[in-house]
Amino acid sequence: MKINDPEGYFESLRKLERNVYMLGEMCANTVDHPVIRPSTNAVAETYNVGNEPEAEELLFTKSHLSGNKISRFTHIHQNTDDLIKKVLMLRLLGRRTATCFQRCGGMDGLNALYSVTCECDYDGGSSYHKRLKDYISYVQEENLVVDAAMTDVKGDRSLRPGDQSDPDMFLHIVDRSPEGIVVRGAKAHQTGALSSHEILVVPTAAMRESEDDYAVAFAVPANTDGITFIAGRQPSDTRKMENSPLDTGNPMYGSQEALIIFDDVFVPAERVFLALKHEYCGMLVERFAAFHRQSYGGCKVGVGDVMIGAAQLVANYQGTAKASHIRDKITEMIHLNETIFCCGVACGAQGEATSGGGYMVDVLLANTCKLNVTRFPFEIARLLQDIAGGLVVTMPSQKDFENPETAPYLEKYLKGTDGVPTIDRIKILKLIENMTVGCGAAAYLTESMHGAGSPQAQRIMISRLADLDEKVKLARRIALID
Amino acid sequence: MKINDPEGYFESLRKLERNVYMLGEMCANTVDHPVIRPSTNAVAETYNVGNEPEAEELLFTKSHLSGNKISRFTHIHQNTDDLIKKVLMLRLLGRRTATCFQRCGGMDGLNALYSVTCECDYDGGSSYHKRLKDYISYVQEENLVVDAAMTDVKGDRSLRPGDQSDPDMFLHIVDRSPEGIVVRGAKAHQTGALSSHEILVVPTAAMRESEDDYAVAFAVPANTDGITFIAGRQPSDTRKMENSPLDTGNPMYGSQEALIIFDDVFVPAERVFLALKHEYCGMLVERFAAFHRQSYGGCKVGVGDVMIGAAQLVANYQGTAKASHIRDKITEMIHLNETIFCCGVACGAQGEATSGGGYMVDVLLANTCKLNVTRFPFEIARLLQDIAGGLVVTMPSQKDFENPETAPYLEKYLKGTDGVPTIDRIKILKLIENMTVGCGAAAYLTESMHGAGSPQAQRIMISRLADLDEKVKLARRIALID
Amino acid sequence: MKINDPEGYFESLRKLERNVYMLGEMCANTVDHPVIRPSTNAVAETYNVGNEPEAEELLFTKSHLSGNKISRFTHIHQNTDDLIKKVLMLRLLGRRTATCFQRCGGMDGLNALYSVTCECDYDGGSSYHKRLKDYISYVQEENLVVDAAMTDVKGDRSLRPGDQSDPDMFLHIVDRSPEGIVVRGAKAHQTGALSSHEILVVPTAAMRESEDDYAVAFAVPANTDGITFIAGRQPSDTRKMENSPLDTGNPMYGSQEALIIFDDVFVPAERVFLALKHEYCGMLVERFAAFHRQSYGGCKVGVGDVMIGAAQLVANYQGTAKASHIRDKITEMIHLNETIFCCGVACGAQGEATSGGGYMVDVLLANTCKLNVTRFPFEIARLLQDIAGGLVVTMPSQKDFENPETAPYLEKYLKGTDGVPTIDRIKILKLIENMTVGCGAAAYLTESMHGAGSPQAQRIMISRLADLDEKVKLARRIALID
Amino acid sequence: MKINDPEGYFESLRKLERNVYMLGEMCANTVDHPVIRPSTNAVAETYNVGNEPEAEELLFTKSHLSGNKISRFTHIHQNTDDLIKKVLMLRLLGRRTATCFQRCGGMDGLNALYSVTCECDYDGGSSYHKRLKDYISYVQEENLVVDAAMTDVKGDRSLRPGDQSDPDMFLHIVDRSPEGIVVRGAKAHQTGALSSHEILVVPTAAMRESEDDYAVAFAVPANTDGITFIAGRQPSDTRKMENSPLDTGNPMYGSQEALIIFDDVFVPAERVFLALKHEYCGMLVERFAAFHRQSYGGCKVGVGDVMIGAAQLVANYQGTAKASHIRDKITEMIHLNETIFCCGVACGAQGEATSGGGYMVDVLLANTCKLNVTRFPFEIARLLQDIAGGLVVTMPSQKDFENPETAPYLEKYLKGTDGVPTIDRIKILKLIENMTVGCGAAAYLTESMHGAGSPQAQRIMISRLADLDEKVKLARRIALID
Repeated sequence: MKINDPEGYFESLRKLERNVYMLGEMCANTVDHPVIRPSTNAVAETYNVGNEPEAEELLFTKSHLSGNKISRFTHIHQNTDDLIKKVLMLRLLGRRTATCFQRCGGMDGLNALYSVTCECDYDGGSSYHKRLKDYISYVQEENLVVDAAMTDVKGDRSLRPGDQSDPDMFLHIVDRSPEGIVVRGAKAHQTGALSSHEILVVPTAAMRESEDDYAVAFAVPANTDGITFIAGRQPSDTRKMENSPLDTGNPMYGSQEALIIFDDVFVPAERVFLALKHEYCGMLVERFAAFHRQSYGGCKVGVGDVMIGAAQLVANYQGTAKASHIRDKITEMIHLNETIFCCGVACGAQGEATSGGGYMVDVLLANTCKLNVTRFPFEIARLLQDIAGGLVVTMPSQKDFENPETAPYLEKYLKGTDGVPTIDRIKILKLIENMTVGCGAAAYLTESMHGAGSPQAQRIMISRLADLDEKVKLARRIALID
Repeated sequence: MKINDPEGYFESLRKLERNVYMLGEMCANTVDHPVIRPSTNAVAETYNVGNEPEAEELLFTKSHLSGNKISRFTHIHQNTDDLIKKVLMLRLLGRRTATCFQRCGGMDGLNALYSVTCECDYDGGSSYHKRLKDYISYVQEENLVVDAAMTDVKGDRSLRPGDQSDPDMFLHIVDRSPEGIVVRGAKAHQTGALSSHEILVVPTAAMRESEDDYAVAFAVPANTDGITFIAGRQPSDTRKMENSPLDTGNPMYGSQEALIIFDDVFVPAERVFLALKHEYCGMLVERFAAFHRQSYGGCKVGVGDVMIGAAQLVANYQGTAKASHIRDKITEMIHLNETIFCCGVACGAQGEATSGGGYMVDVLLANTCKLNVTRFPFEIARLLQDIAGGLVVTMPSQKDFENPETAPYLEKYLKGTDGVPTIDRIKILKLIENMTVGCGAAAYLTESMHGAGSPQAQRIMISRLADLDEKVKLARRIALID
Repeated sequence: MKINDPEGYFESLRKLERNVYMLGEMCANTVDHPVIRPSTNAVAETYNVGNEPEAEELLFTKSHLSGNKISRFTHIHQNTDDLIKKVLMLRLLGRRTATCFQRCGGMDGLNALYSVTCECDYDGGSSYHKRLKDYISYVQEENLVVDAAMTDVKGDRSLRPGDQSDPDMFLHIVDRSPEGIVVRGAKAHQTGALSSHEILVVPTAAMRESEDDYAVAFAVPANTDGITFIAGRQPSDTRKMENSPLDTGNPMYGSQEALIIFDDVFVPAERVFLALKHEYCGMLVERFAAFHRQSYGGCKVGVGDVMIGAAQLVANYQGTAKASHIRDKITEMIHLNETIFCCGVACGAQGEATSGGGYMVDVLLANTCKLNVTRFPFEIARLLQDIAGGLVVTMPSQKDFENPETAPYLEKYLKGTDGVPTIDRIKILKLIENMTVGCGAAAYLTESMHGAGSPQAQRIMISRLADLDEKVKLARRIALID
Repeated sequence: MKINDPEGYFESLRKLERNVYMLGEMCANTVDHPVIRPSTNAVAETYNVGNEPEAEELLFTKSHLSGNKISRFTHIHQNTDDLIKKVLMLRLLGRRTATCFQRCGGMDGLNALYSVTCECDYDGGSSYHKRLKDYISYVQEENLVVDAAMTDVKGDRSLRPGDQSDPDMFLHIVDRSPEGIVVRGAKAHQTGALSSHEILVVPTAAMRESEDDYAVAFAVPANTDGITFIAGRQPSDTRKMENSPLDTGNPMYGSQEALIIFDDVFVPAERVFLALKHEYCGMLVERFAAFHRQSYGGCKVGVGDVMIGAAQLVANYQGTAKASHIRDKITEMIHLNETIFCCGVACGAQGEATSGGGYMVDVLLANTCKLNVTRFPFEIARLLQDIAGGLVVTMPSQKDFENPETAPYLEKYLKGTDGVPTIDRIKILKLIENMTVGCGAAAYLTESMHGAGSPQAQRIMISRLADLDEKVKLARRIALID
């Protein structure tokens, strides 16, 4: 692993000159931009062995390709134990960062491509699997962050890719030669795009024969010619530029999305993992989505742990920790959080080997997992707001706490229980603001809703995979219907 | 009505020199401060007869004191029709502003005091009711905005007012004379404080005999000596200072909270409506809370209407309006919204006359109303995020839409259905951001949770008012238990 | 009112020789059949002025036709106060009976027909309204129970009435003459059919021009030639035949459904209120459904009151009444119950005059009301089972309590708190069994789901009535979209 | 395995002469009693290898004691794979029977005792573990059904065992000698008691030092002197005596509870597994409960599969299967069902070895599992009632379908889609009645609520096990609070 600590990771990113726009300006150095740095810090934790006793075993493993020690984020799962450890790793990092640490997409994308390329090559004599293994070895060796870019911008959602008035609403091949392909389009909502060395593009949906140009998967370095990143806004994002860490709530960590434009980008053949093979898109999407839907059963649970801790702490600070209704609400938060965790673990435990020698989660259970993630974090956040009280959205600014005209008033009147510094109470309330209606809510709520596919996508999969015919047979047998 | 239009209202506020701090600085003119102006605009709508056919009848009525035309916000309800019209008025203004317009607290506080002072005078020979009627006449005549300041800062929530280590954690009388009283303390979360001419203080809880100093209700002009306002922060508040209306989502309207410090403020006797009468605090709190809990059955329903409209509009713009799951979610939003409305109307329809000649809502149903408000808006917001898609938290800034390097990319790639300008789609998504995780969420979500009392306060009232003994009798009769 | 007390009602039914089948046998006398009697008892309460102070005012009113005192169940609502009093009357009777008392359908059907016949006559010169008024006068004078029969058996739900392979799946006219019409078909799920003097038939859905034969409304006595009733089964129904009142849970009251077959039944012209006018079916269905959907906001709330009382009583008997989680669950039951009540009241309070001089509930709110009824009673029942404990479904039979071999064991081991007879604890648990999984559940749960239309029917109406265009305008205005 | 098929099992039970009362009468032969037989049939399926390809591997395994093939229901789990296979076995049997098959309690009780006796012997020199292993070998060899009897009758729930006015409200030792002990008390809600060869008694709660007499665990044959069984009633139970299989809904399978009275029963020393050791009761209860709470994550999921199948089938029969709202509700049923399954699997996958060489589920996750079981089946049942329609509680009896007077009407008018025999539609609706408000509801709903402990018991465990201190530390670190 060439990059082996957070500092090495920051350095590697600083060297990567990319075309990034943010808040109306070109952003030369994302690593040291105050709005983006917390997001990069979160990714950096994936390089940080940390203090938790189990961290070493979770964050690192042995490559099945090289036998070398690698980051689990670059690993191809070899058994159900790997699939469960993945969830434990993600929960651990969620607990560390209280936000999205952005590196699971690449892991999930590579794992999905691993089996799909194998099946494609077997069926049709292509050599995508070999190319992919070379690429995985490179990523493992260099220890790179890979952004898996899936979601197209989609235009009119009632139309298929090939029926849009602008053919570029889904990324597609516009030219090709033996040396490679040229692609055009855009990928939206790319959390971690600005923290990644590599962009791994996969299709966003099953494709039809006439949409073969849209059936394309490949990887390119983030600084490839023709790629432009336009960063998205999050609630309260510019607080990070105010030099008021108190007001940001989570001063160290954050997440950051970007729109990635591919303006006729050339991809060399050795980095093309699928092209013009529409019949593999559905399979690839389903597998990537399943891996990624499991991921939410780890990371968001870790963030949930922080929210539960914040609930308990603010109750301690305000003198409500012994009220039965407060204890009951905290219990409910735990219950919902652990239910999600169960789903993440279960789809790993019920995983199965794939044709390529990797391991795949149980797809039905992975979709069940994610569908719960579109619900329970919202209820956890609601309960946290309930416990915290209205001050979450009525607290004065850090600067008011520093202004000698107002500071004594605030110190006196915003005090909670005796023995707790007023500022500590405010810090935890600002964190709660961050996570429920601030920039943390982008990761904990909206991303829980739409990341790895919106709830309706999970519902369609659940309906499709549930084997209703078999269940009908069960009912017929019980009711004695021939 | 001396103030009879929005402009008159703005002028009256500009003249009111108050002691306001915000973001670390003294804020001389709140009316024209970009962060606060949207909040003042929302209040100004209460002075705007508007275009809706029913607006005139809802916003204005006839004073039972003078017979003159007055704002309904200054009215003492005379019958159940008044109580229902109040809800309709609040819904109408919620629809206009998509936020909290801040003037109902004063209306609800005056109505609660109206009957309580009457009963207090009857019991004990005081003359609070007469004073209050004079004050109400003044407010009606001048057409003033009154902030009803109830919530004390409370310190350690496990201790009563008299048991706090700092006696000022609940506002109380520190001196008195025939001319008046001197009070000290602070009132928190005062939405509309900066848009009000008058501050009407009422106690936050029932008091015991030993807490008589805390049993105090009075009114003072907002620019009274010794009063300091410290404005609170809301998510994304400084976007209003960026000169980027697109990014604010709701460029015209907002709400604004403040902490109000009373540093030994003198209140002349004629503005004291209750003093040293702990036995009336519980009654006053219960009635004020009940009126105010009804209010949420109007205003938040109006805001909900805008959210439902936004859901439908974004679905139109993105090509999903005909998908059955989208229609089903919009139907659910409507259902939840109208359920709240039913509760607001019902507690008015079941209202009863009070001893003083005013009308009081059904207290049990008013608490039922508010308890639903602590739940359904969160689900409505979650559904809206579901319908809107992830772009809600990943959209670039207005400045990116203006930058010639990025604008063409955004125009092309963030387009929805044909015929809809990209910028219109972005506008509605920015509004959805505002209302679900931006500054609008402070009003629609957190305020729905804690305004007029946190959910546990409603649960306690519901349990107390449900007449369980009578219900036990019903069950005994049915089960033939003697 | 010729029938003016329960005994008179029983007598009138005994004289009505109908064609009734139950449990495989012809049932000559339904009044004294042990399975049906509790259902008749429930209806009889509508004739019983009772002890409640408000009962007289709620159960009776003055006819707008004759000026005489009449049962409110035969009244045409004249104002919003009537619409609210209807809900209060239904809640009162639900509290008395803990089940469905079956008489609101006729009231709702007559009220719906009242305005529709008026509009039909106005449009087309028919004289249905006059006929209906005569019929209403007759019903008021005799004080009859009218079963409003709406739900056809429907066959294949994916096909319209006119497209069924058997044309009789929806009741229709098979012959006609100046003297009257002949009809064929069946009406299902008729709660109260066996307790009614009259059957009032209305269509179950909007009809098309080609379905004019299905556009028929009329009334006939229950003992008319060609009518056969086949009673339905309810859970634990035959316990009522075991002579073990303990095991029935609610020994006095119940409900009873029947399938009504119309095998070429002649209806004289003066009792035909609509025929061959498909264009009025939608209006009639919508209005009847709206009235009836409001009704559930009264009756089920009254039943809910009994369930809440049962929860409190069983907690008292078992020593759990002070546990915070028990109190919290009872509070939740109250909250849900009162929310339904609010909806019932609100759609009355927002009612409006109809062309015929009657009063109509707010249709959107009535549908909102009923949709909540398809949810909250199930949660109330679940909470009641939680509070009651597992004994609800594991209690021995009354006969075991009487058997000297087992009685001492049961007396000793099924005792709750000291001072409470074991048998009293068992009585309340048997009532809870009745209401959550026994025959009472048919009325409180399944009927709440499907009575007055299944939830999807309410959702369609809510979606249709919500004025989404207006809401879209609100959102556009706020977001500054032209 | 001496008993190796259903017939052998029935024979073994017929020989076991027990003291059973039901519906007021002594019941000499429970195997052939029509009310109890379906329950015995359900247990018999645990002896039936069946047709499912995975059944052999799930239902049987190898004893770690003898190396012989044994029923998994008598097995001590040796690894996480065993813990997961247990859940798969229970789901399989739930699918077969659509009810409770009653044999998991014994399995869970033996597994809990296995580690607790080991720790007890290690601490104090007792020899309970050896005795237990001998007993387990006996159970494995004979292949017996063991009823684990835990729940005491409890009297006043606000009092501890030692504080009840009647000391027998919790089972306790009343005499002892070197040969054994004598016990008195009663165990309630014993599902499967009448289908079991052996009764394994364990305490119901943690005990204090003064309650040492209550700290007792032992096993006795079901026909031991002094033991009396009194069967409980379920909804619609006597339909099984009517000779009308149609009306029972699930003619083959059921469950049956009983109250077991121990009237000074002698237990020989070799069958006593804990006595007078209050300090091990808490541990034993927690472990038994955890194993058993996992079990619900298997069996109820299997029953849920049948309910989902019934939903799909009734939709097919009624012509609603393509309606989007029906498909959506079925998807929701699947989602909730699989969420429970995830919890069952996950607490197995995260299991850990115990001191005695067995394997223990993750206790926090097992409690999370069961808490979901107290909720989701109720919603699944509600959705099933929604899909099925009101006919569920309004269908005539089997005898009406046989009566030539009524049969043709029913055949004609209760028909659904063309090509489906009316009787098949009725059969599936009767099954749905059985499972939602009939005797199946006792197993699927009430037992889901209270079996393995009521929801509050799970909440207490979840709160205790969640490591809130650690979560508080996470929140403090993120918020930079020292």
